[in-house]
Amino acid sequence: MVHDITRAAIVGATGYGGAELIRLLQAHPHTEVTCVLSSSSSGTPLSGSFPHLTNIVELELEAIEPAAVKEKADVVFLATPAGVSAELTPRLLEQGLKVIDLSGDLRLKDGAVYEKWYKRSPASDDMLEQAVYGLSEVYGEKAAGHSVISNPGCFPTATLLGLIPAVRAGWIDPSSIIIDAKTGVSGAGRGIGLGTHYSEINESVKAYKVNAHQHIPEIEQVLGAEAGQEVIVTFTSHLIPMTRGILSTLYAKINGAHGTQEFIDLYRNFYAGRPFVRIRENGIMPATKEVSGSNYCDIGFSVDERTGRVTIVSVIDNMVKGAAGQAIQNLNLMMGWEESTGLHFVPMYP
Amino acid sequence: MVHDITRAAIVGATGYGGAELIRLLQAHPHTEVTCVLSSSSSGTPLSGSFPHLTNIVELELEAIEPAAVKEKADVVFLATPAGVSAELTPRLLEQGLKVIDLSGDLRLKDGAVYEKWYKRSPASDDMLEQAVYGLSEVYGEKAAGHSVISNPGCFPTATLLGLIPAVRAGWIDPSSIIIDAKTGVSGAGRGIGLGTHYSEINESVKAYKVNAHQHIPEIEQVLGAEAGQEVIVTFTSHLIPMTRGILSTLYAKINGAHGTQEFIDLYRNFYAGRPFVRIRENGIMPATKEVSGSNYCDIGFSVDERTGRVTIVSVIDNMVKGAAGQAIQNLNLMMGWEESTGLHFVPMYP
Amino acid sequence: MVHDITRAAIVGATGYGGAELIRLLQAHPHTEVTCVLSSSSSGTPLSGSFPHLTNIVELELEAIEPAAVKEKADVVFLATPAGVSAELTPRLLEQGLKVIDLSGDLRLKDGAVYEKWYKRSPASDDMLEQAVYGLSEVYGEKAAGHSVISNPGCFPTATLLGLIPAVRAGWIDPSSIIIDAKTGVSGAGRGIGLGTHYSEINESVKAYKVNAHQHIPEIEQVLGAEAGQEVIVTFTSHLIPMTRGILSTLYAKINGAHGTQEFIDLYRNFYAGRPFVRIRENGIMPATKEVSGSNYCDIGFSVDERTGRVTIVSVIDNMVKGAAGQAIQNLNLMMGWEESTGLHFVPMYP
Amino acid sequence: MVHDITRAAIVGATGYGGAELIRLLQAHPHTEVTCVLSSSSSGTPLSGSFPHLTNIVELELEAIEPAAVKEKADVVFLATPAGVSAELTPRLLEQGLKVIDLSGDLRLKDGAVYEKWYKRSPASDDMLEQAVYGLSEVYGEKAAGHSVISNPGCFPTATLLGLIPAVRAGWIDPSSIIIDAKTGVSGAGRGIGLGTHYSEINESVKAYKVNAHQHIPEIEQVLGAEAGQEVIVTFTSHLIPMTRGILSTLYAKINGAHGTQEFIDLYRNFYAGRPFVRIRENGIMPATKEVSGSNYCDIGFSVDERTGRVTIVSVIDNMVKGAAGQAIQNLNLMMGWEESTGLHFVPMYP
Repeated sequence: MVHDITRAAIVGATGYGGAELIRLLQAHPHTEVTCVLSSSSSGTPLSGSFPHLTNIVELELEAIEPAAVKEKADVVFLATPAGVSAELTPRLLEQGLKVIDLSGDLRLKDGAVYEKWYKRSPASDDMLEQAVYGLSEVYGEKAAGHSVISNPGCFPTATLLGLIPAVRAGWIDPSSIIIDAKTGVSGAGRGIGLGTHYSEINESVKAYKVNAHQHIPEIEQVLGAEAGQEVIVTFTSHLIPMTRGILSTLYAKINGAHGTQEFIDLYRNFYAGRPFVRIRENGIMPATKEVSGSNYCDIGFSVDERTGRVTIVSVIDNMVKGAAGQAIQNLNLMMGWEESTGLHFVPMYP
Repeated sequence: MVHDITRAAIVGATGYGGAELIRLLQAHPHTEVTCVLSSSSSGTPLSGSFPHLTNIVELELEAIEPAAVKEKADVVFLATPAGVSAELTPRLLEQGLKVIDLSGDLRLKDGAVYEKWYKRSPASDDMLEQAVYGLSEVYGEKAAGHSVISNPGCFPTATLLGLIPAVRAGWIDPSSIIIDAKTGVSGAGRGIGLGTHYSEINESVKAYKVNAHQHIPEIEQVLGAEAGQEVIVTFTSHLIPMTRGILSTLYAKINGAHGTQEFIDLYRNFYAGRPFVRIRENGIMPATKEVSGSNYCDIGFSVDERTGRVTIVSVIDNMVKGAAGQAIQNLNLMMGWEESTGLHFVPMYP
Repeated sequence: MVHDITRAAIVGATGYGGAELIRLLQAHPHTEVTCVLSSSSSGTPLSGSFPHLTNIVELELEAIEPAAVKEKADVVFLATPAGVSAELTPRLLEQGLKVIDLSGDLRLKDGAVYEKWYKRSPASDDMLEQAVYGLSEVYGEKAAGHSVISNPGCFPTATLLGLIPAVRAGWIDPSSIIIDAKTGVSGAGRGIGLGTHYSEINESVKAYKVNAHQHIPEIEQVLGAEAGQEVIVTFTSHLIPMTRGILSTLYAKINGAHGTQEFIDLYRNFYAGRPFVRIRENGIMPATKEVSGSNYCDIGFSVDERTGRVTIVSVIDNMVKGAAGQAIQNLNLMMGWEESTGLHFVPMYP
Repeated sequence: MVHDITRAAIVGATGYGGAELIRLLQAHPHTEVTCVLSSSSSGTPLSGSFPHLTNIVELELEAIEPAAVKEKADVVFLATPAGVSAELTPRLLEQGLKVIDLSGDLRLKDGAVYEKWYKRSPASDDMLEQAVYGLSEVYGEKAAGHSVISNPGCFPTATLLGLIPAVRAGWIDPSSIIIDAKTGVSGAGRGIGLGTHYSEINESVKAYKVNAHQHIPEIEQVLGAEAGQEVIVTFTSHLIPMTRGILSTLYAKINGAHGTQEFIDLYRNFYAGRPFVRIRENGIMPATKEVSGSNYCDIGFSVDERTGRVTIVSVIDNMVKGAAGQAIQNLNLMMGWEESTGLHFVPMYP
């Protein structure tokens, strides 16, 4: 089968999400990055912002003009801060472009919830309705043929892949869920501030946005739909001294009695045929380094009979499965290509 | 008031705990390290094992002979692996020496519980009974005049200081407690193995000994006594890429309704007059770097009305408050000195 | 053009060099890893040693038997400690296998020099003569059609690519060369020891094997041949707290007067058409992160008129261009494939 | 002997240098910090900028008014960016205050040289003449009784302590000196920028300000005076992924023939009686971690007979011996106190 090349534009190309999309798309057989856009640096070469792309991508950054993008691209990746996509996506769709949005703007179906957690005006109801929530292994089939996909957040990706099979099976009590997430610093983006200053982060760990992270309602929206009831979770994000990776430790009360091996079997069945979720053997927990640079999500389990709780550990590379990699996986699903096309990155170890 | 100098011996002086005891004791006005012991390196200078002590400590390592120790020392710090202290402490006490044990051998009052979690033979019941559990801010007054103190584990110290006031007040449901702990690598000691190899740890985070860490029964023993009922906790330890520091994130259901500020006030009252516990302002969570190199334990709170849970974050330097610093605090309490004597280390920031 | 698949065996597959060969070869269109060998772990699955390879490589480790290897492979990569290859390579060649040796055994043409620096018996003179020194951008054309290639060391690769054009042009005084190299810890391999213990390495930098590193004679052998005279260099290796990357800072007296831009132009001409060497703009120095995970070597220059010296900064990923990547580049050259085949890895940033 | 307490003010107290002065001065028996000043945050508590100082320093930040400072302090430490001290020092001296300046403003005796390297207007010639260059172990005796001391830069401290004995003895050729320095990120201060962003620095090493660092003329001024001839050096600074520490690798041609042990003996004699310089044994090189948190400078040597060069490795904690610690050492010398007063910090290891 011969594929035409799909031309991709990246908005927000001077951020880490943009750079990662470029890294991954260079390996994609059916896609070519033809256009990189930035609200601030237009007219300069991309390799000026990212010297690691010297001789690899020779494009200049362009201002964001939907009609001009249409001349050069078929699909647009939005790797932009909150607030941009709500306004920009409709204008791109009008031009007949397809959109994969990596921001949080189109994830929450209820605009009021968005407004509460993001402290911004939401996208239109129509826009929110159109956007398919692209948690690929769970809702991937909905992406086919759609024009706009909302790519899940990094914490929700690790967390939901670790919880949905158990919630859907009714094996855990949704009201008991506690999520303790640890992330590398790249998730905070390339913007500068004391919060990402090397000397403040190195040799330290801290909790931030406790009970206030904007990924909480995203997790609750999905788990609520899966559980068929309102779900409210306790969620803490921690910043740890590394660049890439998320490890989400998930705690819940077990309904009835299910051992560690049963959980393993349940998840292996659930994710059968999905190449990017790997369930560990009994007694083995994954480390973030074991997925670094790749699109994998690795999950391990420990049932504690003493407490009646299960501890689930789910790891991803926040820049890949938590952002750019899943976005490309969604492109593949949207276009009807094999889910793993162009995503055969082996974890970089060590 | 004039003090005689108390002479201190350190067993296990070639480990990190031993080195930290030496660092701290150099600043102690009433104590002098006169004797450093090691089962493996006797006859070599300590600065051969630890070049950073060149010109500071000029002692040679000696073999462990209680009678010989008695000639040189008044008090012995045991910074030894599990199993040593159970056997060595009675022999030191026989010589009339005082003992502060930093290992886990004397912490669990029930020998059978020790055997289950440590997979070793326990100390004698008599020994276990004699040993005072030295969580200084809570049980410090019991240390005065005693001959043997069992210094708490690093995870239990951070965790118990973060939980006891709420448990004792009946503000949280003890059956709901979940503890998610993150530690630097120095807690694993100076022994070599793939688990502490730089290239395996750096840029990675992993959970280990899930539901199986030997600090679990120590936490449960204390919380059970405080709650007046059996307490079983869910506890996960995580290894993160830093050398020093523990951050323990504590989750529990609130009994009744208590807001964040109420928790802050409760804890400030509880720890009034204790110089080494600092309660953060409402809305501020501590980072491990803010206690690095010091004997502080800093604690922050967030009550989530949506879930009815409180999230408590407690940080220590695992080598100081989690080991050598608290051991010296216990020496002070044992000897009747001011609790903070020789421990006025300002956190090293950044 | 249709290629048959070349079957590759990897000896030393449980080390970091072996893992990196596997990561890279998974992306190679004409090669398949059919056989992984280890002296110590034969009979166990490779993913037991390297969980990150779960579901990616399902091979079992095998003992090292040349005749058995011949059944499964066409080319053998030796990612082994010093001493193995000297003995093993002739036995593999006898079987008609091609060999790419990543160890130091076949790099030094004079066995006596090897013996002096490696403190081991050298390979046979015949073996040393057969082996082509595979510094791809400089001696790559010699690899075509050969059966055994000696892959350069990590420090020599960064250093020689940074020096050869200037030495060959006669622009610098070979007797003035000083090389100050900084390496990540992965270069020390996966073996355990205090020297790679996380707590010893993190937040520290040290010099090691000062004036005694076994890569010194390798650098001198090549520079001597290029200069047409004996060259003796001062070389210091430093271990810094990161996993991957080498930065080599090169100092030399300039013969005559050549400015920074002249050096840039000289090197651009020298490396014209070679995709993996990138020369930076005037005023810009490369960072190791800008080549991480890729086969690039990036080089920057600063001429100081005050001192009459040039400072050249050369960076590589020690695991890729410094080991596995250049080995595959050499396979490509040996087989007559395009030099960059299967090596289009974009640096992973950040 | 009874000491009155000397009252200290710190200008620039919201920077890392200010925080380190506070950490160290808390242990000083004859000094008390009475006043913390900041151009930007006056009116807020210092612990708002630095939560690690909670309950330790309860001062509020004040605006910089020399007359008001005079009411509260006897000596002023200036931990300020370039340009502040040149203007502020004379005004403080007028008030009868003593000044220890940690900035570069008063180090270069020739204003024109300052202007060239700092791109700013220099301090007055009179001011430059008054300021004693406080490299304590070498010029410490000049500090006694003086009113203004210019504290050396971090790179010059490590470098000059490593070179002066050999230069003064005429053992090395001053025209051959090459200095390759590696620093932790804290040296860049607490200001924010892409250059100190965690994700840019972690897992990377880079050279910066190559042949252009403002510490070059400071090194040359001192070495020139020691050598009795103009000295021009090649100097490269590298930023490595750690918070604290400088390692300076020093290369020079040996005049005549001197072995490693001779260098060791020369330096041991030179620094006899100076507690903060430690010369390593033959064959041992120091690591920065071995001086972390302390005022030590550790130095090791390797003579290479092949090249006729000596390699000298000198390490300090840039925040202590490279800034705040040496400043206090200079205070001690200025006041006629024992040089090591209040500076008995044992390196924090690991």
